[in-house]
Amino acid sequence: MTPPRLTARHFTRYLPILDWGRRYDRESATSDIVAAVIVTIMLIPQSLAYALLAGLPAEMGLYASILPLVAYTIFGTSRALAVGPVAVVSLMTAAAIGNLGLSDPVQIALAAGTLAFLSGAILLVMGVLRLGFLANFLSHPVIAGFITASGVLIATSQLKHILGVEAHGHNLVGLVGSLVAHQGETNLYTLVIGVSATAFLFWVRKGLKPLLINAGLKPRLADIAAKAGPVAAVAVTILVTWAFGLNARGVAIVGEVPTGLPPLTLPSLSPALWNQLFLSALLISIIGFVESVSVAQTLAAKKRQRIVPDQELIGLGASNVAAAVSGGYPVTGGFARSVVNFDAGAETPAAGAFTAVGILLAALLLTPLLYFLPKATLAATIIVAVLSLVDFSILKKSWTYSRVDFTAVAATILLTLGFGVETGVSAGVIISIGLHLYKTSRPHVAEVGLVPGTQHFRNILRHKVETRPDIVTLRVDESLYFANARFLEDYVLNRVACEQPLKHVVLMFPAVNEVDMSALETLEELNRRLGDMEISLHLSEVKGPVMDRLKRSHFLDELTGEVFLAQYDAWKKLTGTPVRAAS
Amino acid sequence: MTPPRLTARHFTRYLPILDWGRRYDRESATSDIVAAVIVTIMLIPQSLAYALLAGLPAEMGLYASILPLVAYTIFGTSRALAVGPVAVVSLMTAAAIGNLGLSDPVQIALAAGTLAFLSGAILLVMGVLRLGFLANFLSHPVIAGFITASGVLIATSQLKHILGVEAHGHNLVGLVGSLVAHQGETNLYTLVIGVSATAFLFWVRKGLKPLLINAGLKPRLADIAAKAGPVAAVAVTILVTWAFGLNARGVAIVGEVPTGLPPLTLPSLSPALWNQLFLSALLISIIGFVESVSVAQTLAAKKRQRIVPDQELIGLGASNVAAAVSGGYPVTGGFARSVVNFDAGAETPAAGAFTAVGILLAALLLTPLLYFLPKATLAATIIVAVLSLVDFSILKKSWTYSRVDFTAVAATILLTLGFGVETGVSAGVIISIGLHLYKTSRPHVAEVGLVPGTQHFRNILRHKVETRPDIVTLRVDESLYFANARFLEDYVLNRVACEQPLKHVVLMFPAVNEVDMSALETLEELNRRLGDMEISLHLSEVKGPVMDRLKRSHFLDELTGEVFLAQYDAWKKLTGTPVRAAS
Repeated sequence: MTPPRLTARHFTRYLPILDWGRRYDRESATSDIVAAVIVTIMLIPQSLAYALLAGLPAEMGLYASILPLVAYTIFGTSRALAVGPVAVVSLMTAAAIGNLGLSDPVQIALAAGTLAFLSGAILLVMGVLRLGFLANFLSHPVIAGFITASGVLIATSQLKHILGVEAHGHNLVGLVGSLVAHQGETNLYTLVIGVSATAFLFWVRKGLKPLLINAGLKPRLADIAAKAGPVAAVAVTILVTWAFGLNARGVAIVGEVPTGLPPLTLPSLSPALWNQLFLSALLISIIGFVESVSVAQTLAAKKRQRIVPDQELIGLGASNVAAAVSGGYPVTGGFARSVVNFDAGAETPAAGAFTAVGILLAALLLTPLLYFLPKATLAATIIVAVLSLVDFSILKKSWTYSRVDFTAVAATILLTLGFGVETGVSAGVIISIGLHLYKTSRPHVAEVGLVPGTQHFRNILRHKVETRPDIVTLRVDESLYFANARFLEDYVLNRVACEQPLKHVVLMFPAVNEVDMSALETLEELNRRLGDMEISLHLSEVKGPVMDRLKRSHFLDELTGEVFLAQYDAWKKLTGTPVRAAS
Repeated sequence: MTPPRLTARHFTRYLPILDWGRRYDRESATSDIVAAVIVTIMLIPQSLAYALLAGLPAEMGLYASILPLVAYTIFGTSRALAVGPVAVVSLMTAAAIGNLGLSDPVQIALAAGTLAFLSGAILLVMGVLRLGFLANFLSHPVIAGFITASGVLIATSQLKHILGVEAHGHNLVGLVGSLVAHQGETNLYTLVIGVSATAFLFWVRKGLKPLLINAGLKPRLADIAAKAGPVAAVAVTILVTWAFGLNARGVAIVGEVPTGLPPLTLPSLSPALWNQLFLSALLISIIGFVESVSVAQTLAAKKRQRIVPDQELIGLGASNVAAAVSGGYPVTGGFARSVVNFDAGAETPAAGAFTAVGILLAALLLTPLLYFLPKATLAATIIVAVLSLVDFSILKKSWTYSRVDFTAVAATILLTLGFGVETGVSAGVIISIGLHLYKTSRPHVAEVGLVPGTQHFRNILRHKVETRPDIVTLRVDESLYFANARFLEDYVLNRVACEQPLKHVVLMFPAVNEVDMSALETLEELNRRLGDMEISLHLSEVKGPVMDRLKRSHFLDELTGEVFLAQYDAWKKLTGTPVRAAS
């Protein structure tokens, strides 16, 4: 039986379903179906709303919640992640398509599908090449700042639906300016529906659950009932709009949503379009992956499970390709729906497939009922959902902890609000990396001396220590590489330029984890220049791997001084040698 | 007298001439004038040749060697640096202007001047903002690889002048292909002149000096005579071409070079052109600055002088702006001419101003003589000059020392040869930074144990050490930041997943110089997850600055374990506690 088992294990690397699927039983299925029903109820209004946010027809939101979920069930590793259209990725889709300046709805839908395809392809390639670690280059504060600023942008972008006016813009200034310019056109009926729906949904979120528990419902049931709030808002506003014919009085409605299976669609193969969408697709892939993995890891940890980030890239990539071929647009794992899925008891990724069946039934049966659905209701759903993402406390937290992190967060928030999501997140990554490089390009170097009566050496500025005029000992508190090697050289040469009968410079390397080739050349240069001044250069406490590396060069042969295992050995040896007076 | 002196010292920050100029005397002037004469003789053919390399009229090379030298005299800090057109920057200028697809010579000259202006402006801004450290992000191996590959490209690009054929291309494949395609058109007269001049110049470089010394000349004089070789080649080939009327037989000549003062020119103010040239100007600025500073520092060190890199940005920026307004093109400090200047005894930047006078006299008096100068002679000058830059030994050296550095060098060389200078140097920077981040994103973590009978802890894989099944001690050999925090978390959680009655995890931080906010959040998460498994997390040997930082967060309050000053304290305390058996 060995060969078949080996094959199966080989396949399960890329097809996790073969692993959990073999152990799937009736009990798990029951749990998964219950969770799927609850997630479906939550997802129907959300799918429609996020499609609206992305500037796409409502049905594309439903299509994006069917086949992609099946793909994730097959390829994903998280047992709780619920995939589909999400707020931030929808906003990024709107920005990407907005860049193209299209007006034909067919072209717009094609561009959205192509964006999903490119994003899926990027994720799959990253997964196969195991490049998941690249996502680590988005620092936590940058992500937090980006999500908060995106939430503000999304909420602001939905105000036009609440007011019933036309307004455009991909940044805060543009959006607010556009709203102010069009405020005179506010439609009163729309405003009443929008404000009521928003207020109702906020109340459902904060006030309904305690009420239901007081009324005797079990907490978990009360929680689930509260999640159905948006469905109630949808149903009531549809009825009101239909009953009073409000669509004839200027209330924008969703209108005709095609009934039936998702269409088979193909992405555009135009190189020009690919070129225009590539960067956007890359940003969507990375943001989607980072968000999704962080949700999946949080939920997995609660049950002592582990997810496989590189396989998650494959799962999300397959989902996006599935979205591209079935009339959808870019998808990823959503925070709120995954938590609901988890809380409702989902045990395996099969819950996603059951949810897909639920949404499919909605697409087949419910779409005629959505004709009178006011866009203001969907906008209210979005506003209430995204405001929970907005959390400016990251500014205060990062300010307290580190100015560098604060700078990255503040810049990301300001640039996202001021120039839109794509600029914001790109700048965030560049600023994080730039500030990190800047920090390490000026390593901490401390001049140290012997703590009397011990073998310890400490900073001469912080402690009362013994020093000698003919010896300078510098402790380098950073790995040496191309960006900071010159700084060390300048530091040493400036220190040495003082009038002092200096004979020895000792560099302590206990915290130097690496010396790259640029740094090696700098050390060689330093050794030569100190040699010209008749000053010996010594090293002490060099780590094993660094020493191995240095031995492969000529540096140690040319070194004017010695390499000491411990700084105290250097001190004993050098203070024991006769000291020549300064001439 | 205090206020005026303060003003003067304030000015000397930006005008170093006020510092050395006050002490300038007849003796220094004599040395500077001698050096200037020698550099002028060397610079006349070089200026013409490099203008040819840049695809510009010969006189622009002369103009670029007049006012820019005066500007550097005023603003520069190096006492030996000789500024003017250099090979690599000329090649980059050719590439930048080639991108524009211009054919009108007036437009081409305007673009070259604009490029010098933009490059000058970038350098001045960097100087005022003290951004000289940015140049450190070009690692030594990348620079070495880039210069070598550029040398190969430049030499290849000049072969068309030696053969007397038309050939184009900004990369090696294109150049060689173009040469092969046009080889049938080779002009025999041109070939003879080109090959003879090249052979002569190589002989001058290698064989003439020993010959002259044997003939009784002093070594320094012999050296200087050898430097005049190109002038001899120029004179002889002009005479031959004129005498035999070779220009009528297909030998390409320099032709009419305008006589007179450099023209006053203004850069284009077209935003479209600025936009097209900006990236090229940035790369030229950085490469020019790095080259120039490294030459200047090497020469300054020989006389125990120091240069001021940020002021060098101002000096080179002013030189380029001067080139832009006087009919020149981008300039920087050249290696060969600076060494000649230094060896010939230049004592102050005034030598540059005297050289400018020499070139000015040439522009006023000698240009009619250059009419019959074959382009093949200039090409020979370039080939002989740049082949001294080509040094592939960097490949072997970096291979021995570090695969990461080797990758950066090899990629830079291949990309420069394959895609031209701009792609090559951009890729070099990105690859250096990328590889550095990749390296630090997988920090070295060692599991350690107590060396029996000591208080030292060493890697359990390398040493025979004492461990306990309920304690895991991990030494982290890298600062923790956003790119590597997740790696540590995964490492610890994977280690902890083994079947073992584990109660304590100790992280040793002696080499952790920084914990940024992303890493802090990861440590908090790790603490929580280990807490869920009833495992305590401890820290030991945390550095002062890191500890200060951690105290500003809630991490230490939430930590399930303790922070120990020394790892041995942790060991004593934790092994003293009663160990519960695994359930």
